[in-house]
Amino acid sequence: MNVNGTPYRSIWLNDDDWSVEIIDQTKLPHVFETTTLRNLEDAARAIEIMQVRGAPLIGATAAYGICLGIREDASDDALDRTCERLARTRPTAINLNWAIAEMQATLRNRARGERVTAAYARAAEICDADVETNHAIGGHGLELIAERSASKSGATVNVLTHCNAGWLATVDWGTALSPIFQAHDAGLSVHVWVDETRPRNQGAALTAWELNSHGVPHTIIVDNAGGHLMQHEQVDLCIVGTDRTVANGDVANKIGTYLKALAAHDNHVPFYVALPSSTIDWSISDGVRDIPIEQRESTEVTRMSGRLEDGSVVEVDIASPGSPAANYAFDVTPARLVTGLITERGVCEASTEGLLKLFPERRGD
Amino acid sequence: MNVNGTPYRSIWLNDDDWSVEIIDQTKLPHVFETTTLRNLEDAARAIEIMQVRGAPLIGATAAYGICLGIREDASDDALDRTCERLARTRPTAINLNWAIAEMQATLRNRARGERVTAAYARAAEICDADVETNHAIGGHGLELIAERSASKSGATVNVLTHCNAGWLATVDWGTALSPIFQAHDAGLSVHVWVDETRPRNQGAALTAWELNSHGVPHTIIVDNAGGHLMQHEQVDLCIVGTDRTVANGDVANKIGTYLKALAAHDNHVPFYVALPSSTIDWSISDGVRDIPIEQRESTEVTRMSGRLEDGSVVEVDIASPGSPAANYAFDVTPARLVTGLITERGVCEASTEGLLKLFPERRGD
Repeated sequence: MNVNGTPYRSIWLNDDDWSVEIIDQTKLPHVFETTTLRNLEDAARAIEIMQVRGAPLIGATAAYGICLGIREDASDDALDRTCERLARTRPTAINLNWAIAEMQATLRNRARGERVTAAYARAAEICDADVETNHAIGGHGLELIAERSASKSGATVNVLTHCNAGWLATVDWGTALSPIFQAHDAGLSVHVWVDETRPRNQGAALTAWELNSHGVPHTIIVDNAGGHLMQHEQVDLCIVGTDRTVANGDVANKIGTYLKALAAHDNHVPFYVALPSSTIDWSISDGVRDIPIEQRESTEVTRMSGRLEDGSVVEVDIASPGSPAANYAFDVTPARLVTGLITERGVCEASTEGLLKLFPERRGD
Repeated sequence: MNVNGTPYRSIWLNDDDWSVEIIDQTKLPHVFETTTLRNLEDAARAIEIMQVRGAPLIGATAAYGICLGIREDASDDALDRTCERLARTRPTAINLNWAIAEMQATLRNRARGERVTAAYARAAEICDADVETNHAIGGHGLELIAERSASKSGATVNVLTHCNAGWLATVDWGTALSPIFQAHDAGLSVHVWVDETRPRNQGAALTAWELNSHGVPHTIIVDNAGGHLMQHEQVDLCIVGTDRTVANGDVANKIGTYLKALAAHDNHVPFYVALPSSTIDWSISDGVRDIPIEQRESTEVTRMSGRLEDGSVVEVDIASPGSPAANYAFDVTPARLVTGLITERGVCEASTEGLLKLFPERRGD
């Protein structure tokens, strides 16, 4: 997507054909800065300190991390050490392990002399496949926005989103934001209500930055505001991402998603969830009961980073000193509140039957 | 309520029997500091810059502001000028105009020489009446907590609240927090989930500070978290305050209240609203449609104040630069989502019939 008129991916190979460039997301939205990964440790640290985040982008970065790791020593031992180092970076991202396994499968039975070239080729494929998947999700979601636009005779379609499921979380396009970028690029009038998304503010920091950089009209709101907007017909549809969708259509996503789904249901606003099929967990049949919810550091709630007037970025304590805080990172939205799932294969009902119609190869699993 | 073991009101007469002391709420939660009001202008400014806030406390401060205003000149003209100055401080607070009218009624037909004494007496009465009303609300709410405690065999009762409807918003006790303080003081085990309440963070800043200062167990959560907690049976009841309750039982309160009421309803958690009857607007019969919702400065969303490590308090920009923000201050919770209204006369159903049972003098209005 565009940053001030220039198209970017969130990760790319430099012109030297070996070093890897990323956008340093720890600096956003305050500064747009890219940084160069020149070796395994650069790549591993970039994942650990969240210069890159979002499951698909973490996987892509790990793939390129393996390329960088075996450039100097392409032995089996070095490959294993490289993969082990990368696997330790983030404990829970599903795509990390998937990407490492893909790279291992590509490289293991290949002669040493061919490994580096093959690794770069596979890493590029992984990135391109992610872009293609997200573009397909966007195409299916675009139809929903276009339908709504037509039913409003072309008047602005107002979409509410929560957290950041944009191109910064993937290699390009994003999931929930992909339909929005495509609608905007297709000339439809679309405006996005951007939930701030406390406590880490991915909405106000990343989603707003993405939309602003690409030129999509949007307005930041606090997480408390969406219900009021829906009550007063200022939201045409909701589109969010998901960290894990399970076999009955229940959807885990950033904390607070459930509250927006309730408000959408109460006000007859369609509520869609956009996802690559790689995030479907076919092994769980009751998401509300069985998806484990990560609890994170309370300082994410009680501290906040921001810019002083001189442009420097500082952290401040915002809460009453001495008061404890709890920090649940995700919640689960029951399938009954989800209008539909937008996948790379199309849109389906949030139910086992709906999912199996799109993914018939999973019948009998 | 107590601040580090010492009982406080939010406003009081000093030992000199004429100057007025307030807690400077602009400094909370970072610093606890009181400030002295010595003349009309001190009182007016305290309301304007929100050293005092909360409708009942604004009324009480205005009453004492009139005392201070007529100390030097108790003529009719001076009284009028004093009242006019105070009426200009905040445009929408209902209790402000009510308190000014009360003081005018007390003073107008009295000899000049008696006015100052009468004014101080009436201001003290207004404060005491507020305390009595809130104490009565707390007593009725306490019964609800006690019932729940009994049904849990004395296990901790978890109450979720939104915004600040505590003693800092009134003269003492508060509205929504009054039952909680009374339950705690009565030895019941009660724990409060404190919604941060973006954008002005009254929960994390004021409610948490009140509860911490009085020793009531509590945990700050982001506004996004309440739904997840209710899904997982970690909330026994919700109690919130209100800025305006209308004749059909619809309730306007801080933005985000509606989302918590939806989650409470979806999870069979009782949702109560605590209010002095002075906040009932009998002239409106459909709150969702007819209560006007204030929109405030977008900088309340995009900027945040907090403490640096050296203890100094600064403002920082937290959102993506160049992105607009909208700031709706209140939302309306439909009566169908409200389990009951806790007033100084008792608890009633959130409906016209429920309200009229408690306030039969309003029948036929």
